[in-house]
Amino acid sequence: MAVLSEFSLIQRYFEQLTTQREDVLLGIGDDCALLQCPADHVIAVSIDTLVENIHFFADVDPEHLGYKSLAVGLSDLAAMGAKPAWFTLALTLPEVNEDWLNGFSQGLAKLANKHNIQLVGGDTTRGPLTISIQVHGFVQPEKALRRSGAQIGDMVYVTGTLGDAGAALQLQLREWDHAALNVEDKTYLSQRLDQPTPRVESGQYLTDFASSAIDISDGLLADLGHILDKSSVGARLDLTKLPLSFSMSKVDRKTAERFALQSGDDYELCFTVPPQYFAEIEQGFEGQCTRIGVITSDEGIYFIDDNDALIALKGTGYEHFPS
Amino acid sequence: MAVLSEFSLIQRYFEQLTTQREDVLLGIGDDCALLQCPADHVIAVSIDTLVENIHFFADVDPEHLGYKSLAVGLSDLAAMGAKPAWFTLALTLPEVNEDWLNGFSQGLAKLANKHNIQLVGGDTTRGPLTISIQVHGFVQPEKALRRSGAQIGDMVYVTGTLGDAGAALQLQLREWDHAALNVEDKTYLSQRLDQPTPRVESGQYLTDFASSAIDISDGLLADLGHILDKSSVGARLDLTKLPLSFSMSKVDRKTAERFALQSGDDYELCFTVPPQYFAEIEQGFEGQCTRIGVITSDEGIYFIDDNDALIALKGTGYEHFPS
Repeated sequence: MAVLSEFSLIQRYFEQLTTQREDVLLGIGDDCALLQCPADHVIAVSIDTLVENIHFFADVDPEHLGYKSLAVGLSDLAAMGAKPAWFTLALTLPEVNEDWLNGFSQGLAKLANKHNIQLVGGDTTRGPLTISIQVHGFVQPEKALRRSGAQIGDMVYVTGTLGDAGAALQLQLREWDHAALNVEDKTYLSQRLDQPTPRVESGQYLTDFASSAIDISDGLLADLGHILDKSSVGARLDLTKLPLSFSMSKVDRKTAERFALQSGDDYELCFTVPPQYFAEIEQGFEGQCTRIGVITSDEGIYFIDDNDALIALKGTGYEHFPS
Repeated sequence: MAVLSEFSLIQRYFEQLTTQREDVLLGIGDDCALLQCPADHVIAVSIDTLVENIHFFADVDPEHLGYKSLAVGLSDLAAMGAKPAWFTLALTLPEVNEDWLNGFSQGLAKLANKHNIQLVGGDTTRGPLTISIQVHGFVQPEKALRRSGAQIGDMVYVTGTLGDAGAALQLQLREWDHAALNVEDKTYLSQRLDQPTPRVESGQYLTDFASSAIDISDGLLADLGHILDKSSVGARLDLTKLPLSFSMSKVDRKTAERFALQSGDDYELCFTVPPQYFAEIEQGFEGQCTRIGVITSDEGIYFIDDNDALIALKGTGYEHFPS
């Protein structure tokens, strides 16, 4: 019952994806692609779906959508410390709109060419707009950054700044605004939401030093929570250390902290580092990562506020601990 | 903006997928799965999407849908001669319906356990019902069954019988019926449509003998046409040799031939074999495959009818050649 020819569509619009890798023995156009994994490495794979009106607005710029569809997967590879290699695209479209396909493939190409990741297969069908991308990368198995490796005494770090994407989403939804934010700030925040930077090189650098890592797609608290669960440890975070962008620094601190802790879509990395490697991290990142806390034996996440008081986050507000 | 927790859904309902493989270093539950490819093999991958009201009816039995979603991918691995290893599932659901999820996962499990293929990752999101499955298998690169290897003088074979699924679809749509078909026939044909048998073992056997292969998802003429295109050859088929099931043998021959040639969804293999291997194929398959024609230097597909006359298929009818 195939309605559109997958080959005619994919081949025509995705020729801008010029990356050609030697480990692709057979790409698009047969029953399967044939892919060569380097010796001493394993393949890291992750699949993510973006659905219209759930993950993006119907009127989103297709170039941004193409970019972000691949960025989400690259961020998963980054969080594993894997080097990008190949991706597949399952694209469900309500109609064949050439402008849309052209923009979408340009957005994909921008990021694919940058990270030398090749489109090796796909399926195009008619239906409600849905994009599934599976990414594949290489990592040495003993060096892969699992969520389960955090140890008591490790420091907790994040790359970049937090809360920008969450603030941009609230601005776009007109559910929040702040008088201190000017047009440039809002443009910057929107770009952080629409075209996040997957921390691919950072993830690979971390494989020599970090004990665990995750990418921040659901918010720092939720995602750090996954590390703590898998590692059976807790964390204490210093609220004053949460890294904010220049734009979010203009917002009152409590609001900015709330975005930084709870809003998703930043696609920064959160990772833990044993004491012997602090220097390598802080020198290697040249200020592009921030130490925000420490792994503890307590269950859950607690905070130090600007008075050095220990507080817990409960519901929608902070509470002094013990309450 | 994730609405459903992917882990809670996937873990709860897909525990029936009990296959556990030693080459899965890390499965569901981290940013990526970590997968080990055997030495001297490459990975064959294929992704397929099934969309409600395009590829299946809204009231389809979820167990059949789960089965078929994986069967389609396994059939691609079969057509490459690859041995199944892992799959990922991107599932978009309008709601969390426990009965539906249970049935769907049972259908998946039935086929996954049979072929020792492990679910290693997934994403579950809310939206219009859409299922994307990527399959991964192993094959020795020099033995992979590409579409491009057919040579003049090779014989053309198909596994199983053709046209059953196409007839079943027309029966379900009430666009066709035949007085000779009884209830048992219709049940049999429906099963061929809803729960096709991916020819996984046949595909692996063929890697030692076949020069090209494809699975028949769009109909024999369309799919054999892909082999001919990629191999720059033509084919002459003997219409009297098209293999029909017991049920389709009851239908008038011209109608049955039409289904066998043009209707899809059979998921049988079409393959070509050089003269030195005819014996291995016909003995090895023990009658489960049929020689239907020969590869020629002509462009396109021609037919021998039951009077040994050469005819061409044009539009909706046959024409004597040259016309």
